[in-house]
Amino acid sequence: DTQRVAAETSRALDVFFVLLSGYLVFLMQAGFAMLTAGSVRSKNTKNVLLKNVLDACVGAIAYYLFGYAFAYGEDTSAVEFIGSGYYALSKGFGVTSNSGFNSFFFQWAFAATAATIVSGSVAERTSFYAYMAYAFFLTAFVYPVVSHWVWGGGFLATIFTVESATGPVDAGTIDFAGCSVVHMVGGFAGLTGAIVVGPRLGRFDSEGKVVPIPGHSATLATLGTFLLWFGWYGFNPGSALALSGGGYIVAERCAVTTTLAGATGGIVTLIVLKLRDHIFDLLACLNGILAGLVSITACCAFVHPYAAIFIGAMGALVYILATMVLLWCKVDDPLEAFPIHGAAGAWGALCPGLFNVREFQETAGLDPIGGDDYHGGLYGGGGRLFVANLASVAVIMVWTVGLVLPLFVLMRVLGILRISPEEEIIGNDVSKHGGVAYPIDATVAAEKQAAID
Amino acid sequence: DTQRVAAETSRALDVFFVLLSGYLVFLMQAGFAMLTAGSVRSKNTKNVLLKNVLDACVGAIAYYLFGYAFAYGEDTSAVEFIGSGYYALSKGFGVTSNSGFNSFFFQWAFAATAATIVSGSVAERTSFYAYMAYAFFLTAFVYPVVSHWVWGGGFLATIFTVESATGPVDAGTIDFAGCSVVHMVGGFAGLTGAIVVGPRLGRFDSEGKVVPIPGHSATLATLGTFLLWFGWYGFNPGSALALSGGGYIVAERCAVTTTLAGATGGIVTLIVLKLRDHIFDLLACLNGILAGLVSITACCAFVHPYAAIFIGAMGALVYILATMVLLWCKVDDPLEAFPIHGAAGAWGALCPGLFNVREFQETAGLDPIGGDDYHGGLYGGGGRLFVANLASVAVIMVWTVGLVLPLFVLMRVLGILRISPEEEIIGNDVSKHGGVAYPIDATVAAEKQAAID
Amino acid sequence: DTQRVAAETSRALDVFFVLLSGYLVFLMQAGFAMLTAGSVRSKNTKNVLLKNVLDACVGAIAYYLFGYAFAYGEDTSAVEFIGSGYYALSKGFGVTSNSGFNSFFFQWAFAATAATIVSGSVAERTSFYAYMAYAFFLTAFVYPVVSHWVWGGGFLATIFTVESATGPVDAGTIDFAGCSVVHMVGGFAGLTGAIVVGPRLGRFDSEGKVVPIPGHSATLATLGTFLLWFGWYGFNPGSALALSGGGYIVAERCAVTTTLAGATGGIVTLIVLKLRDHIFDLLACLNGILAGLVSITACCAFVHPYAAIFIGAMGALVYILATMVLLWCKVDDPLEAFPIHGAAGAWGALCPGLFNVREFQETAGLDPIGGDDYHGGLYGGGGRLFVANLASVAVIMVWTVGLVLPLFVLMRVLGILRISPEEEIIGNDVSKHGGVAYPIDATVAAEKQAAID
Repeated sequence: DTQRVAAETSRALDVFFVLLSGYLVFLMQAGFAMLTAGSVRSKNTKNVLLKNVLDACVGAIAYYLFGYAFAYGEDTSAVEFIGSGYYALSKGFGVTSNSGFNSFFFQWAFAATAATIVSGSVAERTSFYAYMAYAFFLTAFVYPVVSHWVWGGGFLATIFTVESATGPVDAGTIDFAGCSVVHMVGGFAGLTGAIVVGPRLGRFDSEGKVVPIPGHSATLATLGTFLLWFGWYGFNPGSALALSGGGYIVAERCAVTTTLAGATGGIVTLIVLKLRDHIFDLLACLNGILAGLVSITACCAFVHPYAAIFIGAMGALVYILATMVLLWCKVDDPLEAFPIHGAAGAWGALCPGLFNVREFQETAGLDPIGGDDYHGGLYGGGGRLFVANLASVAVIMVWTVGLVLPLFVLMRVLGILRISPEEEIIGNDVSKHGGVAYPIDATVAAEKQAAID
Repeated sequence: DTQRVAAETSRALDVFFVLLSGYLVFLMQAGFAMLTAGSVRSKNTKNVLLKNVLDACVGAIAYYLFGYAFAYGEDTSAVEFIGSGYYALSKGFGVTSNSGFNSFFFQWAFAATAATIVSGSVAERTSFYAYMAYAFFLTAFVYPVVSHWVWGGGFLATIFTVESATGPVDAGTIDFAGCSVVHMVGGFAGLTGAIVVGPRLGRFDSEGKVVPIPGHSATLATLGTFLLWFGWYGFNPGSALALSGGGYIVAERCAVTTTLAGATGGIVTLIVLKLRDHIFDLLACLNGILAGLVSITACCAFVHPYAAIFIGAMGALVYILATMVLLWCKVDDPLEAFPIHGAAGAWGALCPGLFNVREFQETAGLDPIGGDDYHGGLYGGGGRLFVANLASVAVIMVWTVGLVLPLFVLMRVLGILRISPEEEIIGNDVSKHGGVAYPIDATVAAEKQAAID
Repeated sequence: DTQRVAAETSRALDVFFVLLSGYLVFLMQAGFAMLTAGSVRSKNTKNVLLKNVLDACVGAIAYYLFGYAFAYGEDTSAVEFIGSGYYALSKGFGVTSNSGFNSFFFQWAFAATAATIVSGSVAERTSFYAYMAYAFFLTAFVYPVVSHWVWGGGFLATIFTVESATGPVDAGTIDFAGCSVVHMVGGFAGLTGAIVVGPRLGRFDSEGKVVPIPGHSATLATLGTFLLWFGWYGFNPGSALALSGGGYIVAERCAVTTTLAGATGGIVTLIVLKLRDHIFDLLACLNGILAGLVSITACCAFVHPYAAIFIGAMGALVYILATMVLLWCKVDDPLEAFPIHGAAGAWGALCPGLFNVREFQETAGLDPIGGDDYHGGLYGGGGRLFVANLASVAVIMVWTVGLVLPLFVLMRVLGILRISPEEEIIGNDVSKHGGVAYPIDATVAAEKQAAID
């Protein structure tokens, strides 16, 4: 009986850990909503908020119907490409045994995150129907398939066959919490969308110079960033997926490395932009924190704290550089979602191959060989993990762009991708959503209120 | 010793689960505060915020002094009507054994939720003293007694005596997380208040047509809804009250069904209102999500995911319909709290009798008979559970309205229910709270600031 | 094997509890950010937000490099003054065993809280460089040393040698969750800063009368307070540091006493200010809640619920009184951080010596004697605990002011402490941060937007 109690408590704790981490990841939706709202003009506030709300809603239905099956269903294909058979949570879920519902919940929250990233890149000028099309497509197919490749036993997880003490074993890409799987997918889909949909009116003047379009509330952007940071403690430590079997040691390492990388990303960005622009730039600092958090996401369970600081700092530089390149290419990404999630995401996705420590991989149950040659190259782990992750980065990039580009181009050809210039000038809120987010007659100061009433 | 460790860890995990769920439910206060603030005019912002703050504060004292005793104290009455003897946490709480404090904490957070719902229905024109009277009354008496009936061993939990394998057992209403106990009580109390206090000035024009009074910030309303959704993961899964004894399987089901019902509620509302009003209505979508979340609250632990989708969809339709009926009746409910919590709550309270699956009730320890005839009618469970829940809905409705109506009428007769028209026009904030929520000289743009200073 | 599972589950649960509590404490950063932003004028919003963001970021690096070592490193000094040897998490952290990372994470969140408190006191007129200097100094040295004295085996924890059944044992100050260690340090550092930097322009008129400078958003202040209250459930119950060994009983007591003290603080403040100023003052009520929460922080694990109500009520009165004294002394503390965290903090720090119940100390493993004479004086515990805590209050006050005063004076002498009057008039955001927080051309109503574009 003690054995039963002990086993059940261990299991219950693991389920609770996954659920709670999922709650925190879900709260990132609120974080993205506030960050996006604060970063756009008030005339499009309701529009971007509604898109964020629907990422969670449409994402839940899409992931329930198809996404979870594609990601974690049984893979009967020879090429380990896609799962199947669990559509609408229909199979493999017993009644009183572990029903797998905690896993679905956690993974749904991840899928919704990927979709949300895109909405920032195409904000303020993309049509609502276009948005709904790619949001469903992304959460139902594009993202789940990638997660299958890396986490669901797909081909990216089994690139190599390496020799171990017990004979040949499979080894492949390692992405602990979804730096490539979630952030790169979202970031590159966003980049594709931003290019095809084109810049906002007035973003570049007649001579091609950048015109700043500040968002309408730095406070909302800050609140959003704090909520995202908070949610990241579900995203990264939660990716241990269990506290048993040493998972709690993994989780606490993740909490520390995530903190240090995010903090460093913010500080480095603040300093670099102070040197470049001679202001202490709050919004850039917030984005730098996010870039640091993204950068550590793949390797958070496997690296030393000092390495986390370096990784976060580099992530911030990659973010800053990517921002400059985007503007130089006249690509308008209102939330800088590609520099943060795509560019810093690609950097972060390569970090396991450089910084992973063998012992920490072992603790996390991800030491395929038990030997000394499949971890971070800077720690004597050889180059194969780096190559595997580099291959993943390339494959995920090609897959995402290759699927999303035709969709956006098709919608553009059909004329349903972008709102009209008239609508863009008066704003989505008035043209599509029944009125502004902050109605003037609801917000005047009291002394004027009497006159109005 | 291992036995002791295993038992204590199991107990500690259960307590932690209840505490943490309570924290999340408490955060719903912040959610309600933001939703309410965003949904009223800025001239009453501080007023509604203060009311929300006091729901938590006054609720804590009221529930500590009386509420918890009425709800979970020993019931010595023959009719199983009310508990007693635990006033001010005075009895039955040992020192080193389970002190029951986690239970009090969790139940307080629920009581505060019920009170908060009401404040939305009567917002913008009700006097502060009237508010304090009903808030105390509701958390100290009205709500606790209902919760005693359903959860504390009261008469609604023991309506029937049914035959089981081991002889006759009691069976009654099943409301897993408080769809009738919390939401219906709040919703019907709010409806009563909204009717007695009357509509806001200008809500209906001289011909009786509805004049829209939009709230002052769609962003705050969205933030509030996300926080509420987040808190619902404490409300519904947390109502398992333990992770041991299979509670974690119950909790993960709740997380999934809650998600799907809320998501569906939002999508259905968005589509219906697009067809009706030709706009994508953010605020209605948010309320639709809440209606979906309310609808699943009674049966979240017992239904299939696809049923959750249906229940959430129906909840959204009930919400939309109730909104139209209210306006047709010239009842002004600024937060649409009755349509969401009262009407969709009544629908949700009936769902266990329709959709509950026997095996899931068994897992949750709520299978009174062990046979096949006391669960959802659509799953072969007979009609008795539906009848029991229908009786509960009627009893709770009569009880709530029957107690709250005299209170509101009395306050109206005494002239202390509603603020004066002058105060209503200039707003509560200036007349009662020392100034507006967003002082003009604190918020002007910088270029004008220099001139002012 | 069952023994191993049981032991590991217990350990995993403890780590999870600490991590999760740390997440909640981290979210207090968002709470402080919103509270501070809402309490200042909009022209300084980005400035105070950035300071809050950097508290977390700079605090993480400072605490990683030095703070944690000073606080919890090995203390080789004869006077038990400071720890050492764990700089940059370099020592004592094994690979697969408990790495101590959860402890670092939790303590970092505390350190960042102490720094944040100060930023409120000196808001709106202090230079950014000055801020960065004291933030680093406080999280790297001032606070960690204090925490070492009280929690890390330092001299304040071993003031007395008392007789126990098993011979003489050390006994000293008891501060369960950091009322003196965190709040008093932050509050007194803030007071020192507010005095040296001087009042904001226009805070006192030419005759020395107080001119109200209301903050720009009561909504943000309310949101911030709710987030802080929420985070306090990590701060206080989390300070049990483990759920095993009866820790869960301690945690649930903390949750209840924290709730009751905060709620009472809010209600008492509301009533007192209604009697004094004849308005229902939302912002004062929020600060009263915080004062109540601060007051219970030292003794939350050890007192009866009714005592928590008394302690919270007294905390509110201390807060109100301190506010009046500050203004009478012409000290300008925009967030009232000293009255809340310093003054109510000092009151709270003395409460264990008055209200602690012996059995509850025993449950929490803090009954040094096992006898009847080292707990709350009002419960027959003698006066030594009160004396020990009084000594702590004095020492911490002297230490904090003694270190922070020279720093602020030095910066003032060097002319780097305060921004110029011109900058203060146009606001930090325009002069330092590249523009206002709410750009006018991003926030105009839609009807005017067309004309602008």
